[in-house]
This record gives sequence, structure tokens and C-alpha cells, in this order.
Amino acid sequence: MIYFDNAATTKYKPEEVYDAVNFYLREVGVSPGRGSYSVGIEASRMLYKTRCTVGKYFGMSRPDKVVFTKNSTEAMNLFFNGFLKQGDHVIISCYEHNAVLRPIQHLKDLGIIDYSVIQRVDLTLPAEEIFEKYARSNTRLLAMTLASNLTGRIVFREDLYRLFKEKGIVTFLDSSQGAGKMALSMKDQAIDFLAFTGHKDLLALPGVGGLCCESKEHFESLIQGGTGIHGENYTNPDVFPEGYEAGTLNMPAIWSLHAGVEYVLFHREELQNQEHVLMRYLMEQLDELDNVILYDRDVDRVSTYSINIKDMASDKLVALLDKNGICVRGGIHCAILAHEAIGTVSTGTVRISLGHRNTKEEIDELIKVLREVGD
Amino acid sequence: MIYFDNAATTKYKPEEVYDAVNFYLREVGVSPGRGSYSVGIEASRMLYKTRCTVGKYFGMSRPDKVVFTKNSTEAMNLFFNGFLKQGDHVIISCYEHNAVLRPIQHLKDLGIIDYSVIQRVDLTLPAEEIFEKYARSNTRLLAMTLASNLTGRIVFREDLYRLFKEKGIVTFLDSSQGAGKMALSMKDQAIDFLAFTGHKDLLALPGVGGLCCESKEHFESLIQGGTGIHGENYTNPDVFPEGYEAGTLNMPAIWSLHAGVEYVLFHREELQNQEHVLMRYLMEQLDELDNVILYDRDVDRVSTYSINIKDMASDKLVALLDKNGICVRGGIHCAILAHEAIGTVSTGTVRISLGHRNTKEEIDELIKVLREVGD
Repeated sequence: MIYFDNAATTKYKPEEVYDAVNFYLREVGVSPGRGSYSVGIEASRMLYKTRCTVGKYFGMSRPDKVVFTKNSTEAMNLFFNGFLKQGDHVIISCYEHNAVLRPIQHLKDLGIIDYSVIQRVDLTLPAEEIFEKYARSNTRLLAMTLASNLTGRIVFREDLYRLFKEKGIVTFLDSSQGAGKMALSMKDQAIDFLAFTGHKDLLALPGVGGLCCESKEHFESLIQGGTGIHGENYTNPDVFPEGYEAGTLNMPAIWSLHAGVEYVLFHREELQNQEHVLMRYLMEQLDELDNVILYDRDVDRVSTYSINIKDMASDKLVALLDKNGICVRGGIHCAILAHEAIGTVSTGTVRISLGHRNTKEEIDELIKVLREVGD
Repeated sequence: MIYFDNAATTKYKPEEVYDAVNFYLREVGVSPGRGSYSVGIEASRMLYKTRCTVGKYFGMSRPDKVVFTKNSTEAMNLFFNGFLKQGDHVIISCYEHNAVLRPIQHLKDLGIIDYSVIQRVDLTLPAEEIFEKYARSNTRLLAMTLASNLTGRIVFREDLYRLFKEKGIVTFLDSSQGAGKMALSMKDQAIDFLAFTGHKDLLALPGVGGLCCESKEHFESLIQGGTGIHGENYTNPDVFPEGYEAGTLNMPAIWSLHAGVEYVLFHREELQNQEHVLMRYLMEQLDELDNVILYDRDVDRVSTYSINIKDMASDKLVALLDKNGICVRGGIHCAILAHEAIGTVSTGTVRISLGHRNTKEEIDELIKVLREVGD
């Protein structure tokens, strides 16, 4: 089987990650912050260590300012619902995943906020011009994706974040696509809040994501419940991060995240090089096919690409590739704004997303099938 | 190490559960509802199969009416926030975990609902009397725990649920403590909604819980985001259960839940017998110790028990037992209402919670240490 759906989840994890899960399950197996016996304290230590590893990875001033959630979607709902107030205005980009769009739209539907979408043609404007065009007196948040899950385009711009922050607007980054593939520094790149997910390029298990808080701006908790500390309070204690993490944490996945991030930190250059070589090769090969439509060809990107075959529904191509043992994803990819931006709402696209474990031979197989479709 | 903190999490899982996790990670490894290629469809099948296994376990009319969450805390926040409306009144018991109390109290603090707590002395009254004493014209929900996480007392009463349901009040059960130890039938026992967690007596990994919906009453989603279907909508589609499960699901834990529930279904009688024998033995032994205070001694219970040593803080006893290689939990146990009910707010309690893997010899070790403390 040839797996080209790494933007959905990285199917293959390093052995270190599987080992970490097994270690947690077999040797620890208890919940942190619950029992004060030795193995419970050890679980708490592992939790804290993972916070710091994640915070270090994202270049935070205080690496333990990380709230764990079940995935980046929860982290974004937590932040948007907890931070935004009546009358706020938000700016997002046209490349946002539904995990950004939908909570924002929901708050708009409730009459709480309003929002504007930076259009595709405006994304390359100078930062000042974007600010002039989109910011209002009540703009409180800029929320963008690091990279498009649809086309792979890198959307985050440090100069834009820096300017908005200087203007007193809080900045938020959805790093679901790209974290693990690119180095980031929240401190140096003017990123106040960042949501991440573990199971993509941070190479961890599903079931863990989080919110990194470089800024000290207050936000409310999304859920209430047992926090392991201050159990005598009738509502969550105002303690960071426990007050945001009610309920039993997913420690096997959290400890796998520790292993995944450590792996990425240690191997990043090598992983990036492998992916760059593969991506260049894929694009060269696709360029030679007359029947293939390419989207966002000439942009800085992560190793994700969207295509279509002329006059063929994306789902049909996905099925055809599947018959040939090749896994790619078709349809809307939970990113309706991006389809509106590139003009593929009615067709969807076929997304090819590479990982460092892919090979040129696998790309050759893909190209072979695509070529045959054209004949 | 002797592990008596099974009410926090079951540290030891059946080999079948570990095998299920490994199988998912190594042989499947992709997200359900995302890719329409074969292995993606297989993941969706496994997800559906787990819903049905869980629904069957809880005796649902339609076993697939299960929403997966990260834990029971999220399931309760989802239900309470999504179901309760301005002006509603809720009835809970004095044995509720903070995972019930805190979301309810939070809704009260926001001025949305009011609630009443059935006091300990009233819990054994005839159902009609409880209804007369606590129900109001605007009472819309009865929410109780299956069993107390503090004392092990079984709090759920079928007759009470049946009466409240007849009176048009929606019924909700928090099965976090007790599910896996006791047979339940939502259909036959008048339970409209039920929250569960995987990592306790359903013997699964942490990171999965859920909400079983026997009733068709509508409730709003807690989080918005990518749902894998109807990606073209600007907010979550009104589709059950996908509209409630935005973001990538934790399939390794979900598949471990399938294995855990199957294990419990197959072995329930044997597991129950083992625990009953152990529990009876523990209580007989504790009865012989003069220095031990026992809480909720004479009630129907699951295999959890709270004690204190006269004139000793619960934390001190936990530390002493830990030195002897015995894991129990002290303090408030995220259940402040229950401490108010049994009069242990200032001292906390030491909780001993058994699992079927414990032995009489382990109980003897515990009793030996407790006896020495008294000398």
C-alpha cells in the first residue's frame, strides 16, 4: 500500500513512538495529578516533561504554558470560545480549515462576534496594506493557518503577525498542518497563541493536541469537571493549565507526543530534506502530465499538493488510485473557504500529501496511474 | 506494587486490549471518515462496530446512537451545555463527581439554570416523595451518578428514573463509576442519556468516553470543526453522531474500547464474583480494626470504599501506604458534594478501590500496615 494521506494523519510513526506508548501502558498506566503515590507522581512528571518538550519545540518563553486537549479542533474551540467577547471582530484567511471557520462562524451566528476573511489575492500584499484593508477598531484577533491542508501553501507570515501584534491585536496560529515540518518560535515570531495536533507531523498518536499560550491574555475554560487540584471548589480553579484540562488526560498519547516531538527535534533537517526532494520530484513529474490541473503551484509549501484530472470527479480518481493500492484523499477536505478561493467547490480536489517515509518509486506508481487515466 | 486505585483508572488491562491498540496502530493507523480508500473505510467500519458494541453493552434500542468524546467529563459538558436552556431546573444527587457538579454550577453562575441537590438522608425515600420534595414546574433534567467515586455507594435507582421519566423529565446517568461492574439497560431502566468513560472498568485506554443517547431529545454540539462529512457547511452539519464529533477521533483508544467492552461482556460474571469476594474480605478485615473510620458501610456498593484512620490526615496515610508499596488515593477525589454529605471536607478520605486483578494477599498487606498504624 502506498500512503499519500499524511496531511490527514501520519500512518507510520517512528518505533520510538510505539515504544513510548507501550512503556506508558505497561510500566506506568496511571493518571497524573490523581494519586500522590510514587507511580502517580511519576505520571505527573511525564506530563510536565511533555509540556516542556512541546513548549520548547514551539519556541515559547515559558515552555510549560501548554494546555493539552484531545486534538487541535478542541484547542481552537477552547481558545475562540474562551477568549472572544461580545462585539469582537476577528480576521482569518481564506485558507482556514473548518476547525477555524466553524467555531468562528458559530460565534457569529450567536451574535457575539463578526469576522472578515483575507482574500487570496490579498495574501501577498504588504502587511500594512492588509492591516488597512481588514482591521477595524474592534478587531481583537488575527487567526490564521500555518499551511493550507488543501494545497499545502504556507499561509503564516511573520511580518503580518508582528505588525498586528504591534497594533495591539492578539495573534493565533493553527499549526495543524506544518508543525513538525517547519521550525517555529512563538516568542520571536509574534505568535501569542498556537494550536497543535499530535497525530500529524509531530508523529504522535491521535488523541492529543493542545494550546500553547505565549501571551498571558485570559480565556475561559471550555469544559468544567475534576481537575485533580482544588477539588473543594464548585467550579474549575483558576489555575493554569489544570483549570483548562478537566477530566482524565490521555497520558499514553501525551507520552507518545513526547517521543514524537523529540524525534522531530533530533531528525528535523534529515526529514525536511527527504520531503523536499520527494516533493520536488512529485511536482516535476506532475508538470509533465497534460491532463492534470495543479492548484497553488507556485507558492511556498509544505509537502501537500492538490490536483484534479480534467473532466473527472475527485472521488472517481480516489477510487481508481485505491484500486491501484494508492491512498489519497478527495472531496472538500473540511476546508470550504479554501475551495471557494481556488475555485473547486463543485469538483473537490485530489490531495497528495507526502511524508518522509514515502519514496520516489511510490511517486512513480502514482504518476503511472495518472498518465494512464489521461490516455 | 499493590494497586488499589482502580476507581481512578484501571492500571492493568486485559492482553486483548493491548493487542487491539497494537493492531490499530500497526495495521490500520488512519482516521475514519476522512479518506475513502480501503483502509480508511476499514477504519470507519471499526468505529461503527465500536459504537454498536458500546450501545449493546448499555442496552440501547439503537446501539449506534453513541457520540464519542475524550472522556466522560467532556460527554457531560457536551450534554449539559447542549441540552439545558434558559430557565431550566436540574436535580442532582449529593454524590455527584465534580464532572457533574461543576458544569451544572457553571451554568447556574451564568444565570442560565438553577439546580437542587438530593440530600443523603433523602436518597432512600420512596421515589414519589423525592419527586414531591425536589421537582419544580421547570425541572427538565435528573442527573445522577451510577455509583459514588468516593464511597462506592450505588446511587442510581431505577424506580426513581422511571418515575421522573413518566413525569416528563429527561434522565441522565453518569456511569463513570460502575459501568463495567454492573449490567445496565438504558431502554429498560428509563435512562435517556448516559455518559461513560473507557479507561476505568470498561478496561480501555484513556482518551475515549462518550454519550449514549437513548432519547431523541435534541442538544447542541460542544465543539465546531471538521466532521469529515458535509465539509461545505460553514458550521457543523446536523448529522448524528458526526455533527458532535468534530476533529480527528482517537481511534486507537476507541478500538481498545471495543476490546475492553467485549472482554467485560464475555467475562462479567467471573469478574463480578472475583470483586465481590475480595470486597467482602476487605470489609471483614477492616471491621476488625478499631482505629479505622468507615464511610457508607451499609449500602449497596461497587468495590470502592473510603476510610480514615482516627486523628490522621488522609494524605499522611497515603504516603505511609506508598512507602509500603500500596497505591491508594487520599484527599477530596474531585467530589466535594459527597464529602459534605459524609462529613469529611476537612479531613478528606483514603479511598481503596479494588479491581478483579487484586488478591486477598494484597488486602492482607494493606490490613497489616493499617493495624501497625493503630498500635
